[in-house]
Amino acid sequence: MRFYLLLLVVGIVLLGENAFAQTDTILMAMTPIEFERIAPGVWRGRVGEEDSLKLSSFAGRQMDDMDGEVAFPFAVDSILGQHVGNRAIIRIPLSEAERVFGLGLHFDNINRRGRVHHLRVDHHSGITGRTHAPVPFYVTSEGYGVLFDTSRFISVYPGIGNRKDRPDLPPIRDRNTDSAWQAQPTSDAVEATVQGPGLDVIVFAGPKPLDAVKRYVRWSGGGALPPKWGLGFWHRTPTNASAEEIIEEVDMFRDQDFPLDVVGLEPGWQTRSYPCTFDWSDRLFPDPSGFVNAMGERGLHVNLWENPYVAPESSIYDEIKPYTGSHMVWLGLVPDYTMAEAREILQDHHKRNHLDIGVSGYKIDEVDGIDEWLWPDHAQFPSGTTAEQMRQTYGLQMQQMLLEMFSERGERTYGLVRGTNGVSARYPFALYSDSYSHRGYVAALCNSGFVGVLWSPEIRSARNEEEWVRRMQTACMSPLAMLNAWASGTKPWSFPEVNEPIRKAMKLRLQLVPYLYTAFAHYKFEGVPPFRSPALDWPEAGLEGIADQYMMGPDIMVAPIIAGTRKRDVKFPPGKWYEFETGELAGADGETISIEPDLDEVPLYVRDGALITLAEGGHNVATLGDTIVRHYGEEVSQSVTYVDDGVPDNRKGDDWYRWYQMTATPGEGLEVKPARGGYEPPEGFEVTYQYLGPK
Amino acid sequence: MRFYLLLLVVGIVLLGENAFAQTDTILMAMTPIEFERIAPGVWRGRVGEEDSLKLSSFAGRQMDDMDGEVAFPFAVDSILGQHVGNRAIIRIPLSEAERVFGLGLHFDNINRRGRVHHLRVDHHSGITGRTHAPVPFYVTSEGYGVLFDTSRFISVYPGIGNRKDRPDLPPIRDRNTDSAWQAQPTSDAVEATVQGPGLDVIVFAGPKPLDAVKRYVRWSGGGALPPKWGLGFWHRTPTNASAEEIIEEVDMFRDQDFPLDVVGLEPGWQTRSYPCTFDWSDRLFPDPSGFVNAMGERGLHVNLWENPYVAPESSIYDEIKPYTGSHMVWLGLVPDYTMAEAREILQDHHKRNHLDIGVSGYKIDEVDGIDEWLWPDHAQFPSGTTAEQMRQTYGLQMQQMLLEMFSERGERTYGLVRGTNGVSARYPFALYSDSYSHRGYVAALCNSGFVGVLWSPEIRSARNEEEWVRRMQTACMSPLAMLNAWASGTKPWSFPEVNEPIRKAMKLRLQLVPYLYTAFAHYKFEGVPPFRSPALDWPEAGLEGIADQYMMGPDIMVAPIIAGTRKRDVKFPPGKWYEFETGELAGADGETISIEPDLDEVPLYVRDGALITLAEGGHNVATLGDTIVRHYGEEVSQSVTYVDDGVPDNRKGDDWYRWYQMTATPGEGLEVKPARGGYEPPEGFEVTYQYLGPK
Repeated sequence: MRFYLLLLVVGIVLLGENAFAQTDTILMAMTPIEFERIAPGVWRGRVGEEDSLKLSSFAGRQMDDMDGEVAFPFAVDSILGQHVGNRAIIRIPLSEAERVFGLGLHFDNINRRGRVHHLRVDHHSGITGRTHAPVPFYVTSEGYGVLFDTSRFISVYPGIGNRKDRPDLPPIRDRNTDSAWQAQPTSDAVEATVQGPGLDVIVFAGPKPLDAVKRYVRWSGGGALPPKWGLGFWHRTPTNASAEEIIEEVDMFRDQDFPLDVVGLEPGWQTRSYPCTFDWSDRLFPDPSGFVNAMGERGLHVNLWENPYVAPESSIYDEIKPYTGSHMVWLGLVPDYTMAEAREILQDHHKRNHLDIGVSGYKIDEVDGIDEWLWPDHAQFPSGTTAEQMRQTYGLQMQQMLLEMFSERGERTYGLVRGTNGVSARYPFALYSDSYSHRGYVAALCNSGFVGVLWSPEIRSARNEEEWVRRMQTACMSPLAMLNAWASGTKPWSFPEVNEPIRKAMKLRLQLVPYLYTAFAHYKFEGVPPFRSPALDWPEAGLEGIADQYMMGPDIMVAPIIAGTRKRDVKFPPGKWYEFETGELAGADGETISIEPDLDEVPLYVRDGALITLAEGGHNVATLGDTIVRHYGEEVSQSVTYVDDGVPDNRKGDDWYRWYQMTATPGEGLEVKPARGGYEPPEGFEVTYQYLGPK
Repeated sequence: MRFYLLLLVVGIVLLGENAFAQTDTILMAMTPIEFERIAPGVWRGRVGEEDSLKLSSFAGRQMDDMDGEVAFPFAVDSILGQHVGNRAIIRIPLSEAERVFGLGLHFDNINRRGRVHHLRVDHHSGITGRTHAPVPFYVTSEGYGVLFDTSRFISVYPGIGNRKDRPDLPPIRDRNTDSAWQAQPTSDAVEATVQGPGLDVIVFAGPKPLDAVKRYVRWSGGGALPPKWGLGFWHRTPTNASAEEIIEEVDMFRDQDFPLDVVGLEPGWQTRSYPCTFDWSDRLFPDPSGFVNAMGERGLHVNLWENPYVAPESSIYDEIKPYTGSHMVWLGLVPDYTMAEAREILQDHHKRNHLDIGVSGYKIDEVDGIDEWLWPDHAQFPSGTTAEQMRQTYGLQMQQMLLEMFSERGERTYGLVRGTNGVSARYPFALYSDSYSHRGYVAALCNSGFVGVLWSPEIRSARNEEEWVRRMQTACMSPLAMLNAWASGTKPWSFPEVNEPIRKAMKLRLQLVPYLYTAFAHYKFEGVPPFRSPALDWPEAGLEGIADQYMMGPDIMVAPIIAGTRKRDVKFPPGKWYEFETGELAGADGETISIEPDLDEVPLYVRDGALITLAEGGHNVATLGDTIVRHYGEEVSQSVTYVDDGVPDNRKGDDWYRWYQMTATPGEGLEVKPARGGYEPPEGFEVTYQYLGPK
């Protein structure tokens, strides 16, 4: 039976060096991570060596006035770490009922527990973890936050799996016979891992989830405060439109009585795109400065589309080439913007050609990537930054570099970006996507707040009037209200039968600018995300299953209608909630109501006692009319509103901004007192009080 | 203007250690890989250090009679490599028109060029690269094959991207104005990368694509040759069926005249499943040996479902625990089967409890994984094998271990597995999936051949009669013809109106067993995949866009009908092709015809001059009737057919098999001569000749 011998030889190949058992103890050699307090309520721990280029490399100046000292939110020695081979592992306890929020910008739902997140900057393809903003930060219903401070591809396992040394295992069930069998038995931890020399973890105390997010944002450098004009309406023109055609198009907005603040130029403004030259097309824009001036004369700001990849014809090609990566994107160079040399070349070009003639911002495309288009994971860059670090931070690098140019000139900017990551709250750029699910867009508004990013649910086109209106309403109740019709050529008036509802939504946006500006000031100064899931404000209210209602600023909850569903449910957080338009009581305290709003209505609900600062009239932010403070509900109210001088918001001192303290008694009157800050608006600060409480 | 200073501080965080430029030369420091000839037409190269646990660790005995020496299919020094940080990179030239096939089992289409493959063993979720068989082997239309010999997660970029030092760049186009602009400009290479100490690459010469695949399979140890009974019809019984109920159910097959060879028991045969005990349920199987005997008396073989995860109640739990990983799956242990200790414990158990009473094989479930169910990427195993290596090879480990048990006893086995990887052609296990797209199943049959794996497009259920028939027809024209109705309880006769077409398909399967057995012998001895895309046989025939026609054995092309599409096109490879049933000419030489077959017809086309060995009658393989050789077309034909003694196929010597050389002249007669091999069938070898050429 000689063949038996041969079979044994075949069987033996698996043995090799592994032929002896090690003990469980060696397998489980995780040790407690030591934490160092790095700010009030913020602690840093580390596994392995300190890695290069962390997300916190992009942090701004930490807010001076972070909250006072609080206790570390975990038992001592309960967070474990290990570095083995080239892999760092961190394990953080999780209780049975704890919900996990964050871990990036997601378009589906809110509670991220139970799904593996292989976090990677990518376009929205529906693959969990691959997202425009794969922020490795989470906050839980228990009221603390955790940031994995790494620019590598990181895998996070929130409430997934169990180690075999877990002392209190959940009951084991028989799938043959027990209908309570679960594919994912309850887990007791969040585990995370990267391949690299080490991994930092930063813990943010609460005590509430919103406190933890606020701490994360403030530690990151505060939230972005856009220029006030950035909160007006944006319109992106067709890609190959000439200066003349664009002037004609924007004048139509005024003629047809649709508000407009920002005009976005798409790829065709350059001599070549995909890759880009960044140089004005002589053919379409023979006089770029004249064109930007013409916009300025109309009270409009100009935003330029670009992607970062440098075409051979670009005026900076030769100069920047030494500071670019091994691989090309669309045959264009990929600059290594972790290098000062590369940044200076691009900044110098942009200042001379764009900022000096009055361009006010950028739309940074294609930094999120489709694997087939971008550089591979093994590309190399002259600074030594790895391809994955470059992929995870390219959007951050671009935002940092472009913001810097404006700040240095004493100007603010507001723009768009297709990819970002953690510790980026201070960048005044809203994310956008090639995806176009209205429902997904609303879920993204909910999720954006957990991780300190902004999301623009832009409108592009629609199959019918109803969809056009419903999408426009959501776009207008978002951080950046934009019609992006570069491809479709759609205008606000393209569905003439619904001009009125469209106009109404756009004017409502303009009316809300003072309120929204204050909401962003809360983001900047206190770290409260202006757009967020109500589950962040009310973690105990059972709202974590809802991804189609969101908070806009401190006091307004939006419950958008998706075309095709005229009816929807609205679940109210604690307290009484009033209809924005009428001031009538809509619901209260966890109540769920069913609504069927007319086409021109966007369901907005206001907190009891809220004072909402609104503007009257105007066709853009520069021409806003009088300020009105509307008082909702039955409560005596204390609230604030915010003004400033409009130039860079990251200055020391307090002579450039002012908070006003407002006190109102239902039906009686409003008292306004200057509070924090030393700025005196040249035009003074006058408001009209309107009591809109229940009659 | 003190705030300017602060802004600069913010801007500077990006500089760090990267503040000087390196030259392009350093970026591009790839060096030619040296190749060593390891077999005729097979060469190995390496970047970095030799890694542990390569796919070739699972190779069997290399075929003795590999083809003679041929030239290395690349220019010297044209394959480049680099190891930098913890990453290995390999770059292989690719010509402009070259098509790339393989890179795993895919359910969409055939040419893999232009898509990034992050290869990872996974269930079929539609994410490119995550597949039941992420085999890092490709073959191109130029006629060579490449295997990346690694058990790590590998990313392969076939024809994607360009390095900036490429000398002959494709034309760069302006997306603004040039409609020929491409998101993926033509690339000149396949690049691949792993994180780890090194990466081996193995090149297989052609000269034709099929030659390269044959060489790959033969170098892997030859293709799997199932026992002949494995080519009969399989039926899996409901999960909680008792021995008595199963006996009743299989007797219905005979009563209703449906062929049956193998009965598969699903999870309920064990005392607990998910995780598993591997121990017989006393309740359902009070006398396991008696049950298996009862099956044997009916000419039936018994196949047992299992997944590898060990439940606390299992009789092997305590013993195997020291040889298991840090994390559990469904609260069950994950044995480290790279360790002899773990293998011996399971094998000993299975021999005593299963093989000794006559069990003939296994269905290995859940080795592919859903990230949320399996161990995380940072799990640890006592052998030191990493979690990713374990994930990529767990199916291989299981197949190896189970095959070994049967081989040692002098028995063959045939079974199913949910996950495999490269160098696995010799394992007699067919893949299956939780997905259920009929069209995807057919594409998988096409793709399976490129990478040396077997795929079972099982039938489970159907929405209507038409779908039931069409799916059954495809299942019957596949490596493992199975009804898997453990969940739905569907039987072949569940749609009584179509009993006849169903019976016809199942009987056709039985009739084809001698032909299929010979096809598998070609796989075993020569490495020709029994199921494959015709593009592998005819790379120049423009078939690479077709994923709904496949070759079955040497001479038959199958063009299945998908329910809902009564009409379809069939494109013929070079030569004349005849209808299987009638022998009539169907088409020839690249011709495309449109067909609209009746419900009971499965479109099979036979090559000109083919001699197809068929069996007449019988209700399973043990009772097959006379052998017939059908001669198609107008050519004088030389062909072979294969018989053996049915016991292990990996023996030295040639006394256990026999090829017969058959020569036929249209309409005249058939001459059969014993050829290679010394086996004499005890019953002799007699065939009846039928000329089915055009009249």
